[in-house]
Amino acid sequence: MAHLGSSVEYALHCLLWLVDPANGQPSSRDLAELQGVSPSFLAKIFPKLEKAGIVRATEGLRGGYQLARPPEAISVLDVVDAVEGRKPLFDCQEVRGRCAIFGGEPPAWSTAGVCGIHAVMLRAERRMRGELARSSLADLAATVDAKTPPAFPARVQGWFGTRLGKRVEAKAAAAKGARPSAGSPRRG
Amino acid sequence: MAHLGSSVEYALHCLLWLVDPANGQPSSRDLAELQGVSPSFLAKIFPKLEKAGIVRATEGLRGGYQLARPPEAISVLDVVDAVEGRKPLFDCQEVRGRCAIFGGEPPAWSTAGVCGIHAVMLRAERRMRGELARSSLADLAATVDAKTPPAFPARVQGWFGTRLGKRVEAKAAAAKGARPSAGSPRRG
Repeated sequence: MAHLGSSVEYALHCLLWLVDPANGQPSSRDLAELQGVSPSFLAKIFPKLEKAGIVRATEGLRGGYQLARPPEAISVLDVVDAVEGRKPLFDCQEVRGRCAIFGGEPPAWSTAGVCGIHAVMLRAERRMRGELARSSLADLAATVDAKTPPAFPARVQGWFGTRLGKRVEAKAAAAKGARPSAGSPRRG
Repeated sequence: MAHLGSSVEYALHCLLWLVDPANGQPSSRDLAELQGVSPSFLAKIFPKLEKAGIVRATEGLRGGYQLARPPEAISVLDVVDAVEGRKPLFDCQEVRGRCAIFGGEPPAWSTAGVCGIHAVMLRAERRMRGELARSSLADLAATVDAKTPPAFPARVQGWFGTRLGKRVEAKAAAAKGARPSAGSPRRG
C-alpha cells in the first residue's frame, strides 16, 4: 500500500477547483460528481480540511466550500497532514533495547539518543516533507492552467452554475409545494 | 500505519550483527532470539535479503547467514527495497481524466504528461529515497560502534559461540543416540 492514500489525492484535486473564485462555493457533492469520485468519501475529507484551516464552509443554498487562505499559503504538505494526520514514515519499535545479552535490563548506553536506524529514517522523512512543503496549491494550479485550453474555465463555471441553478429551482419548487393553499385547513 | 514497517526495522537490526565477521554465521533463529523478536517473522525476511544479494546463506551445522557484499556497498535503501519491494509513496489514480465535463472521453490535453500532483509526490519520493541511499550499513554500524563499550563485541561473539556450541553438542548427542549398537537387529 502506498504511504499517501487516495484521500490525499482527492483532497488536492478538489482544492484545485476551489482556486478560481469564479467557480463559486461548490458543495463536496458537486466536487464528487464533477470528478467522478464517491460523494461519501469526499464528505469525510472536507471536515478535516476545514479543521486544518484550509477550507471554510458557508451555510445556505448558495453555500459550500471555499479556500480559507490564499492558494500560495496552502502547501501540499498542509493538505497531506490535514488528511492523513502526520503519519510517520517509520515507527521505531526500539528493538535495540531488547537484546538478549542485556537480560531485560538494557544499559543506558544501549538506548541513549535516537536509534541510528531511526535517525536515517527521520532524515529521509524530513527530505520528503521538505519537498511537499515547497509546492503550494497555487503552484499546482499553475501547472494545470498551463495545459488547459482558454475556453475550459468557462465550461467549469457553467457546470457549477447549472448545479447551483438546479438546487435553487428545486428549493423554490419544494417551498411552493409546502405553502398552504387558500382553502386548506389550518392547525391550531 | 507507517510507510516502512517493522520488517525493514528488523532486517536492518539483523544485518548490523552480521557486519562483524567475528560473530560467525548466525541463523535467523539465533538473530531472532538475540533480539527478542519472532523467529517466524525473521524467517520470512531473510529469503528476501538473500534474493536481493544482500546476504548469503551457507548450509550445514556451522552454516547460517553472512553479508553477501561489504557493508559499505549495502545502503539502507537496498534493504528497504529488498524487504518492502519498491513500495510507492503515492499511487496516482488519474482522477483528472474522470472529470464529468469530459463525458467519459477525456481530451488529450487533460491527461498529457504526469499529473501535477503526482509529479510533486514523485519529487518527494526521490528525496526520501536519495537520503536512504546515502546511508550504508557500514555507516549505521559506525554509529552503533561509537556508543558501544569496548568489551561488548566479545560478549556478542561469546553469545553466538555458545549457541553454536550447543547446536554442535546436540547434533553429536543425536548422532550417538541414532547409531545402532553392536547387538541391535538390522533391517533388510
